[in-house]
Amino acid sequence: MSDLPSATRSESRQRPTLAITCGEPAGIGPEISIRAAWELRAEVRSVLLGDAAYLAQTAHGLDASIALSAISLQAFRNTGLPDFPQDRLTVIDCPVNEPIVPGVLDARNGRAVLQALDIAVEGALKKHFDAIVTAPLQKSTINDAGVPFTGHTEYLAERTATPQVVMMLAGGEHPHLRVALATTHLALKDVPAAITFDSLSRTLDIIHADLRDKFGIAKPRILVTGLNPHAGENGYLGREEIDVIIPTLDAAKARGMDVAGPYPADTLFQQKYLEHADCVLAMYHDQGLPVLKFASFGQGVNITLGLPIIRTSVDHGTALDLAAKGLGEADHGSMIEAIRTAALMARAKNSL
Amino acid sequence: MSDLPSATRSESRQRPTLAITCGEPAGIGPEISIRAAWELRAEVRSVLLGDAAYLAQTAHGLDASIALSAISLQAFRNTGLPDFPQDRLTVIDCPVNEPIVPGVLDARNGRAVLQALDIAVEGALKKHFDAIVTAPLQKSTINDAGVPFTGHTEYLAERTATPQVVMMLAGGEHPHLRVALATTHLALKDVPAAITFDSLSRTLDIIHADLRDKFGIAKPRILVTGLNPHAGENGYLGREEIDVIIPTLDAAKARGMDVAGPYPADTLFQQKYLEHADCVLAMYHDQGLPVLKFASFGQGVNITLGLPIIRTSVDHGTALDLAAKGLGEADHGSMIEAIRTAALMARAKNSL
Repeated sequence: MSDLPSATRSESRQRPTLAITCGEPAGIGPEISIRAAWELRAEVRSVLLGDAAYLAQTAHGLDASIALSAISLQAFRNTGLPDFPQDRLTVIDCPVNEPIVPGVLDARNGRAVLQALDIAVEGALKKHFDAIVTAPLQKSTINDAGVPFTGHTEYLAERTATPQVVMMLAGGEHPHLRVALATTHLALKDVPAAITFDSLSRTLDIIHADLRDKFGIAKPRILVTGLNPHAGENGYLGREEIDVIIPTLDAAKARGMDVAGPYPADTLFQQKYLEHADCVLAMYHDQGLPVLKFASFGQGVNITLGLPIIRTSVDHGTALDLAAKGLGEADHGSMIEAIRTAALMARAKNSL
Repeated sequence: MSDLPSATRSESRQRPTLAITCGEPAGIGPEISIRAAWELRAEVRSVLLGDAAYLAQTAHGLDASIALSAISLQAFRNTGLPDFPQDRLTVIDCPVNEPIVPGVLDARNGRAVLQALDIAVEGALKKHFDAIVTAPLQKSTINDAGVPFTGHTEYLAERTATPQVVMMLAGGEHPHLRVALATTHLALKDVPAAITFDSLSRTLDIIHADLRDKFGIAKPRILVTGLNPHAGENGYLGREEIDVIIPTLDAAKARGMDVAGPYPADTLFQQKYLEHADCVLAMYHDQGLPVLKFASFGQGVNITLGLPIIRTSVDHGTALDLAAKGLGEADHGSMIEAIRTAALMARAKNSL
């Protein structure tokens, strides 16, 4: 984390500078990253991290007018980002070891995927990038490359020494539909015990701070679901609301936060309530995400709260099957939204 | 259950005959029942069950052109339904004991609410009614009247000697969004143990039979969620899919049913998957209902599967606060859909 010079802030900052990691090279990541970055080049300055030769080949296959200019990692480390014209995308080369075959995983290329991520994090911490946007990667490829890896989010938390992060998804026609999760990838039977006064308090603090600092919402309003159906119905359908959630919300209110709940999840997720909220905090994965994904029509954005950097990602996987069919099969809508959201957050945070 | 003569089927059956129980008289039930039945009088022959004098007063307050004709329970029992003209709503009088004050519960009127329900069930079993539609009631009023009562659905199951029922909700712009639940009003921590091979098999059998027999779907396609996030991700996020759900689905397929899953709930609830399904079976309340209610914009319909009769209801409560404000505050959209759905089912079942 110590190789990069700190960025000078003298250059124009009209367009936020985003690092886009292209993810698993055999998946749809390279294609959707290039297409979205190219479409949004007037709004954001995108820096793609991936194999430069493969990205050039992909860009050419998509649209011969897409212009990429690659630099080496060494050049980036020595002199920072060059000032390419606005009608070109910058690529920082993270070369793979073996030829990329769309749809076919190759663990020998796993290290290059991880290298791209490391450069993005390092560059963001050093302020070369205002935010990072990640295309999907394949966990198994990284693990098979010999690096224990449980997921993008966990890796970013570890690399930035962040003790707790919160997963939030955003999307849908309604501009304010944001859903954060109190627990994420946990067997359902383990969910009730994982929600404690301490864990839930930290989660609320992180959401509150990031909505304020990275979204520019002066006093974020957070609506909180119950754990049980009907939010426990006064204890008849479970006591976690009474024993844990309500005391946690009371304490958060006492700290000056605008939180409300616990509400029944099936009542809360209606437009008339959502339109008064900056974020819904759901207690677990399948309580919050089905609505979000239904509403966002494949254009949801995953936002990691709690990191010292801004990070968004798509809400889908590598889609190896689509990649194998050739270019033009993938939908880059989620990547468009991920870039736009990162740009909005960067502007809010940095007053760009 | 033995007082009514069997209905003669000689009368015109162009319009299905529906019993509509007006529910808690101090809530919005009387208003929404009258408004919806009146709007749909060309499509269905509605028989309202409630206090005749109060319904007449309510109808008059809503629209002086609404025409009601009341008969006594005794007259109904003696001679069945009269053949009123199509531009009148029939009322079977279930008189309350005390004056009805909108917004104010009175346990002394609880028995009349239950009587209306009993007449509806009895009449449906005897084929006087093709289906019953229930407006919301207040559990506490019935209990305070001295009758142990845990809910509409449980009561109907008991009165019809039905060992297991399944709750299904339908609604939304997409005509095929139907969500059934494997478990309903259960604390979240008790959900995993409640889903067994036997209980899930019976649930699937009920859904399959009712979609076939009451919806006229020759070979219903049922998509099933997992219990855990990502449907357990091959056992990494819980083993219930491997140990219980997959064997249950395999057995159902072997019985000739078109079932598929278990799918991750946040993936499954997207239009591209839903449009190929007749029903989604979710494992628990807050996994299935938030999407349904979000999509149905307050016009969801609750359908009880497994009963020997057709029963639909609104997906909201008595709204005492709205009732207290006077007529014209309540939204009767869910009641409209409940009546329409019951009519569709009646036509499918009886080939009307």
